[in-house]
Amino acid sequence: MVLEQQGSFAVGGTITTQPGKFDPIKQGAFNPAGPDSKGQTRHGDHAYVFYQIPEHARKLPLVFWHGYGQSSKTWETTPDGREGFQNIFLRRKFPVYLIDQPGRGKAAKQTTGTTITAAADEQLWFGIFRFGAWPNFYDNVSFSRDPEALNQFFRQAVPDTGPAFQSDLYVNAVSALFDKIGEGILVTHSASGSLGWKTALKNKNVRAIISLEPGGDFIFPEGEKIEPTKIGTRVVQPATIPESEFVKFTKIPIIIYYGDNIPDQPSENPGKEQWRTFFAIARKWAQLVNQYGGDAQVVHLPEINIRGNTHFMMSDLNNLQVADQISKFLSEKKLDQ
Amino acid sequence: MVLEQQGSFAVGGTITTQPGKFDPIKQGAFNPAGPDSKGQTRHGDHAYVFYQIPEHARKLPLVFWHGYGQSSKTWETTPDGREGFQNIFLRRKFPVYLIDQPGRGKAAKQTTGTTITAAADEQLWFGIFRFGAWPNFYDNVSFSRDPEALNQFFRQAVPDTGPAFQSDLYVNAVSALFDKIGEGILVTHSASGSLGWKTALKNKNVRAIISLEPGGDFIFPEGEKIEPTKIGTRVVQPATIPESEFVKFTKIPIIIYYGDNIPDQPSENPGKEQWRTFFAIARKWAQLVNQYGGDAQVVHLPEINIRGNTHFMMSDLNNLQVADQISKFLSEKKLDQ
Repeated sequence: MVLEQQGSFAVGGTITTQPGKFDPIKQGAFNPAGPDSKGQTRHGDHAYVFYQIPEHARKLPLVFWHGYGQSSKTWETTPDGREGFQNIFLRRKFPVYLIDQPGRGKAAKQTTGTTITAAADEQLWFGIFRFGAWPNFYDNVSFSRDPEALNQFFRQAVPDTGPAFQSDLYVNAVSALFDKIGEGILVTHSASGSLGWKTALKNKNVRAIISLEPGGDFIFPEGEKIEPTKIGTRVVQPATIPESEFVKFTKIPIIIYYGDNIPDQPSENPGKEQWRTFFAIARKWAQLVNQYGGDAQVVHLPEINIRGNTHFMMSDLNNLQVADQISKFLSEKKLDQ
Repeated sequence: MVLEQQGSFAVGGTITTQPGKFDPIKQGAFNPAGPDSKGQTRHGDHAYVFYQIPEHARKLPLVFWHGYGQSSKTWETTPDGREGFQNIFLRRKFPVYLIDQPGRGKAAKQTTGTTITAAADEQLWFGIFRFGAWPNFYDNVSFSRDPEALNQFFRQAVPDTGPAFQSDLYVNAVSALFDKIGEGILVTHSASGSLGWKTALKNKNVRAIISLEPGGDFIFPEGEKIEPTKIGTRVVQPATIPESEFVKFTKIPIIIYYGDNIPDQPSENPGKEQWRTFFAIARKWAQLVNQYGGDAQVVHLPEINIRGNTHFMMSDLNNLQVADQISKFLSEKKLDQ
């Protein structure tokens, strides 16, 4: 792997300033009980970005944005120790940018505090991420049965270090990234799916979106009658925007992938049911984007004979197959020049 | 920059398990109010490590451990946008491992919760890190006056995502790293200084320690009369261990660096006074290690005509000069084969 450069930086964010004048002599000693904050500032709410540019790189970078409860680790070494999308797409000569969104990973410094509860919740996520119904893996699932793989997977999660779901703040930081680096291809996953749609509305430098299993909060044009999304007892009203905004989605190629073990019919298994619902609404949304003149596809991987994928297709055992699909899309859309 | 490989993993850590049996149907739906944790686990308290192995690499890796309030970002791109020790030592053909200690950065998942206060404290750290006495930089300081550099610097800090100062837990995780990777050279900074001494006592794979401005909590042999450290009104009792343990410090080469603007005489400026005290105790400790037959040096950079260094000498404007000193040490001790 030959790199022309690599580095990292913070981008976007806010600054809070406390009233008064800071006195470096009187307020300058470290106190484990906390600082006297008079006249002091706090920078926070930025994204952290690690980038690598390979030699003879293609023009447009891939900008990878993790999902809920995750960090840029999502795209690095897989839980079973193979190369993730970071290395795979570097080897394929794309500049690769990995984001830690505000409040995650190395972008953990925020201007609003929070309480971290350290809740035991891993069996819940095992289900929601469609590894299986705890304690059993789904038979066909493309995830290593070596216990160390699951150990690594559980440890890649990170808590929010500020309030949860600060959507505008996350979108502002990632939009600031696209202002800084120029045109690029945004790759979203899960919860960053909806954030990616918002970023594309905000910033023309988002030249395409590749969305891996986005959540169900798609954005529809006002005036279209869209049923609320029902997942078990949860009811989610669809977000809407003026048609003049919605048509922005028609200006860029969009591809959305969903993996395996997503049923056609309602399921009593909440992990499956959630994705059945989100997948259905994704198809409805893409259809609408295309009706308005756009270029949006929803790919169900089992339909093209790519099987066993969990919610984390970028690190599943067959992640190279998934990467090949993405390469094919980038080539077809001439995004890999 | 030609890399043979790069990747990341979690290492060490603990697991907590809640009583009862998890029911994937009844407990499997995401609830923003928090999970029903019955029968669920939480993995945490591991370190996160990102490693890069250059082509034709030297044998012993450099393992970089950040200080208080920081993450592995410490060693990456400098606040003013130049290459940090990560890139510099990769170019010098060392395998480079960057640690996020438990509760920081991408190792943020812990098994004990905490409250993050988002306190405004940056003017305090500006002083403690010897950039200057806010709002003024010290005249000679080797830090960019471009406001964007200070903006980047303030944003590289991260909060603890669990209880502060869990020394044993941090040391256990980093010792597990040395179990995994074998022999290496540990590079510590500031608060990880004292953790590095403990790691060397615990793990023979630590073949040398390079410590950049360690804090004052050195570990002395029982029986030696060491005065408590006084910093303003704070009094720190020296930690002690049996002589049979202390002599472990005599088995490895140790070098300690301190930067500029550390006064000889007591100062009313807490930022300066802290480092005057720590520097003095470092010299006393190294002298004692050598009395017991060891090989420990304390280098005051201004004495060898390297000037203006803050507490963050790895990212100061003259960080290449500092890196050259480290290369010289590694060569002299035949640690760069």
